[in-house]
Amino acid sequence: MWTYQAPVADMLHVLVQVLDAPAQWATLPAHAELDADTAAQVLSEAGRFASQVLAPLNAGGDRVGCRWSPQGVVTPPGFREAWAAYVQGGWPALAAAPEDGGQGLPAALNMPLNEMIAAANHGWTMYPGLLHGACEVVRHDAVPELRARYLAPLVSGQWLATMCLTEPQAGSDLGQVRTRAELVAGQPAANGAPLRISGSKVFISGGEHDLSDNIVHLVLCRLPGAGAGSKGLSLALVPKILPDGQRNAVHCDGIEHKMGIHGSATCQMRFEQAEGWLIGEPHRGLAAMFRMMNSARLHVAMQGLGHLEAATQNAWRYAAGRVQMRAPSQPPGASPEQGGDPIAWHPAMRRLLLGLRARTDAARVVALRCAMLLDEAAQHPDATRRAAAAGQVAILTPVAKAFFTELGHRGADDALQAWGGYGFVAEYGIEQTVRDSRIAMIYEGTNEIQAIDLVLRKLLDDGGQRAGVLIDELAAEAVLCRTDAALQPFAEALDAQLDAWRQALAALLTGRDGDAEYPLRVADDMLAGVGHALLAWAWARIARCSANPARAPAPGGRSAQDWLDAARHGIDWLLPQAQVHWARVGRRGAVLPHLARVAV
Amino acid sequence: MWTYQAPVADMLHVLVQVLDAPAQWATLPAHAELDADTAAQVLSEAGRFASQVLAPLNAGGDRVGCRWSPQGVVTPPGFREAWAAYVQGGWPALAAAPEDGGQGLPAALNMPLNEMIAAANHGWTMYPGLLHGACEVVRHDAVPELRARYLAPLVSGQWLATMCLTEPQAGSDLGQVRTRAELVAGQPAANGAPLRISGSKVFISGGEHDLSDNIVHLVLCRLPGAGAGSKGLSLALVPKILPDGQRNAVHCDGIEHKMGIHGSATCQMRFEQAEGWLIGEPHRGLAAMFRMMNSARLHVAMQGLGHLEAATQNAWRYAAGRVQMRAPSQPPGASPEQGGDPIAWHPAMRRLLLGLRARTDAARVVALRCAMLLDEAAQHPDATRRAAAAGQVAILTPVAKAFFTELGHRGADDALQAWGGYGFVAEYGIEQTVRDSRIAMIYEGTNEIQAIDLVLRKLLDDGGQRAGVLIDELAAEAVLCRTDAALQPFAEALDAQLDAWRQALAALLTGRDGDAEYPLRVADDMLAGVGHALLAWAWARIARCSANPARAPAPGGRSAQDWLDAARHGIDWLLPQAQVHWARVGRRGAVLPHLARVAV
Repeated sequence: MWTYQAPVADMLHVLVQVLDAPAQWATLPAHAELDADTAAQVLSEAGRFASQVLAPLNAGGDRVGCRWSPQGVVTPPGFREAWAAYVQGGWPALAAAPEDGGQGLPAALNMPLNEMIAAANHGWTMYPGLLHGACEVVRHDAVPELRARYLAPLVSGQWLATMCLTEPQAGSDLGQVRTRAELVAGQPAANGAPLRISGSKVFISGGEHDLSDNIVHLVLCRLPGAGAGSKGLSLALVPKILPDGQRNAVHCDGIEHKMGIHGSATCQMRFEQAEGWLIGEPHRGLAAMFRMMNSARLHVAMQGLGHLEAATQNAWRYAAGRVQMRAPSQPPGASPEQGGDPIAWHPAMRRLLLGLRARTDAARVVALRCAMLLDEAAQHPDATRRAAAAGQVAILTPVAKAFFTELGHRGADDALQAWGGYGFVAEYGIEQTVRDSRIAMIYEGTNEIQAIDLVLRKLLDDGGQRAGVLIDELAAEAVLCRTDAALQPFAEALDAQLDAWRQALAALLTGRDGDAEYPLRVADDMLAGVGHALLAWAWARIARCSANPARAPAPGGRSAQDWLDAARHGIDWLLPQAQVHWARVGRRGAVLPHLARVAV
Repeated sequence: MWTYQAPVADMLHVLVQVLDAPAQWATLPAHAELDADTAAQVLSEAGRFASQVLAPLNAGGDRVGCRWSPQGVVTPPGFREAWAAYVQGGWPALAAAPEDGGQGLPAALNMPLNEMIAAANHGWTMYPGLLHGACEVVRHDAVPELRARYLAPLVSGQWLATMCLTEPQAGSDLGQVRTRAELVAGQPAANGAPLRISGSKVFISGGEHDLSDNIVHLVLCRLPGAGAGSKGLSLALVPKILPDGQRNAVHCDGIEHKMGIHGSATCQMRFEQAEGWLIGEPHRGLAAMFRMMNSARLHVAMQGLGHLEAATQNAWRYAAGRVQMRAPSQPPGASPEQGGDPIAWHPAMRRLLLGLRARTDAARVVALRCAMLLDEAAQHPDATRRAAAAGQVAILTPVAKAFFTELGHRGADDALQAWGGYGFVAEYGIEQTVRDSRIAMIYEGTNEIQAIDLVLRKLLDDGGQRAGVLIDELAAEAVLCRTDAALQPFAEALDAQLDAWRQALAALLTGRDGDAEYPLRVADDMLAGVGHALLAWAWARIARCSANPARAPAPGGRSAQDWLDAARHGIDWLLPQAQVHWARVGRRGAVLPHLARVAV
């Protein structure tokens, strides 16, 4: 049966030994008092919550799902109690600023928390999924009166929040949003202005539920006289329960029946002259929304990693216990007479298992490196360092969102194969991971939208400068690996990836003139290429750490050799895939034929 | 919403123009009277049944599923009536021999029928899925008395059949089968001997249902004194209803709750001294079962192609109608003022759609070529030709099973992305295709088992001879393409694939000495490489056909240019993936580390 044990030892090894996070914390005033022991305590506690409270609710959440009635949405058994316990434990406020009532811990601890809760129970994790982003928006963009009323209960998790963007005709294209915001008579259109909101939204995660008494909706809408397209959008804060305790005119008309995350209520929402307030300047709603979205994208990236981890550990466990046929290499202690060996010893399964492990390790190193950059961007005393870190996060965010969610879903789908026919049977649970993980490739901007964001806005916008800085920084790892003969293959693999990245960037920068479709045509490959380059960097970093006795994993976890084996498998068996992506980026001439048939 | 229109025009174009099937039929006495017009009539009629009778039952079959009670299994609404209509139409007997009551039509028409019914309703298609194989076994291996009693009602579809192999401890490893067969006192253990069967089987598709009055189980079991392992297995015919009208001691104890194909009853079966008869010689059951399994593997391959087709046509239709944002290239007739373009015009989606189309076209060409080889192996007057064709089918069967089912599932999963969030919502239907298609990668031998069969038994067994003949035959297409300058890219692409195949074969033949794991380690890549080589051959063949006005598609279907565009997309954008697989086969040195952790 599917289980989930939070990989706390692996996370700590990556943070402390591979990435040296404690040394970074010492340079950031806000985290100067944090050390490895405290980090271990926090992650162990979070791991216990994920493994012991959330994971046992996962299968039931899928089977029972949410139930809708005109009176509201009932979440699956145990979800409400788990949320209360999560709030009680102070988890929603882990990374929030102390002045807002938070614990002020770094993203480097909050992102592993997000990985764990998503891996343990993706459906449940949807409810707080947008909370951190909503807090950011209220904190930065709301007028003091609204901030005073809404920030503290959102930070603590007493209330939950939604992001109301999508409408039936406005998915990837938010410029098509039609929800109207009217000004209350006599009030000027300024930040904080009271509004009446009318319109319909779809795919609103947690639009209605029974976990919290109030739900704060952040609604993308149009003020009177707003221009067409995305530049005419404003953002409104619309609570389910008004300050006077009355129910606002916010209705949930139904929930979707979905492929997965059945425990998450995906709501059709109707606003009928609902009361709300403008958040941020008029017609500047999209900018505020992006603040929320960037945070949400990293959260989704961690869902991808979480699914990959869950798939990996379940596949290893099942394959170690399932005996079928003799393997060509026998496991230690196998008797010549026994009828079969664990399938983990059959070469096809060993490849599968090592491939899952190699991806999980490397993706986690990249994710936590990204978290450390977030912390540096937020807390470093040097403004130049803050800006540089922010520039790297800007590149890493769409890559992590798209590449990790793809790794998570494909990894789960690959892992299912280890179970044979049992993998297709609901009670074994891996098929739920396959279904749940699929949505992460779509929401918060489809993976194709992430690729366009990466290529147009993050790589080409500044002539490739920001990317050049990131590539140089990654190349430093190859230089360090070259000092040890045993690490040469890792140095070479990484350098090859970074060279390919530089060449692809150059090809795009020159080739886009006169062929506007070119960057769009190869954006998905560019993202996949960059994703592989980041994995190559992570495998090199893991290998260098494994070669250093002073950075040995803590006893009780995996051995240094184990980490090295997986990293070596990564560069030998997985990295060659990158070549296909880089080659496609480089082939400028392969235009796409017109789809004349589509137009008829 | 998901729909299915049988691609009859595409199938006929492939059969008649691309593969010249009518010329082959003229050389086979059994099919000498068949012509293109008759083939068109048969496929059109089959297409109507699939599109108008089966496809409308697909979503309901998923939603309602099968219901089990101790009294039996109730199939979803309409399934029983659809089966009656199918039998009434004579479809089960399409390819059966006239002397057995069949219509004697070739596999080249029966395999498209299988593609259509699987695409329209995979769950329903499971019930007759093993019928053809069961008929083969009864025809070849049963004693005359049993054949007289069971063959005719199986050929007509009046009764249905199962293949009872798997037990909880015996999945890929059938040597672990424990079901016992006892001889009735005083009877010798000879073909046709009455038996009493006891044991439990799992994952029995159609083990119990309400479509037919009787169900004929073919049960893998052990006679007293049988040796251990797969050499001690025998095959028994065990009917649900005995010749005297009594219910046999065959019980369905429950059905599985699965990721997909909810309309198919996947049964846990219990035999309690059930009456049956030996089919074939004692202890030779696996050989008889393989007869059934080879037929079943091609049937599963067609399920993969069917899912790919369904995903392709639904994605094209949805992407043509869904408008989001302006595209960099505008479709014909687009106005500069309109708010957006169909997403089919956005480069990322055009790539997706062309990739789906290119795969579907090529896989169908390979599948129908395989069907024609089956017909040649069965019906050609020259024994040498029959043997040569059978040799090619032996190679193509595991490739088609594994490669097409992977194309079907991954294709459906890719296609889902076109819908954005709607793709994750059940009522749009594409997510059902993703779920249903997953099982085809597992059953009838997992895709990893197919790869081992291909490499060990089909490619290396005879020192690569059979493979060499197939490669030479495929190379003839490149020679033909070289006569036309416009077709050079196709000739080069195909030659490169065949060279890579030859090199990989040579590397395996020499490299396996002293490294017994080597062929097993790279078997999946070898299969994927061969699969891509076959696609390259198909794209070349399609292109050559498109360049020949005498072989133009019939009016009303896709244009020759349309076929050519998709084929060109295949060699430009999809074929580079093959390089990763061939390179991995060639790297003999990349051994897999021992999984010491697994053993503890």
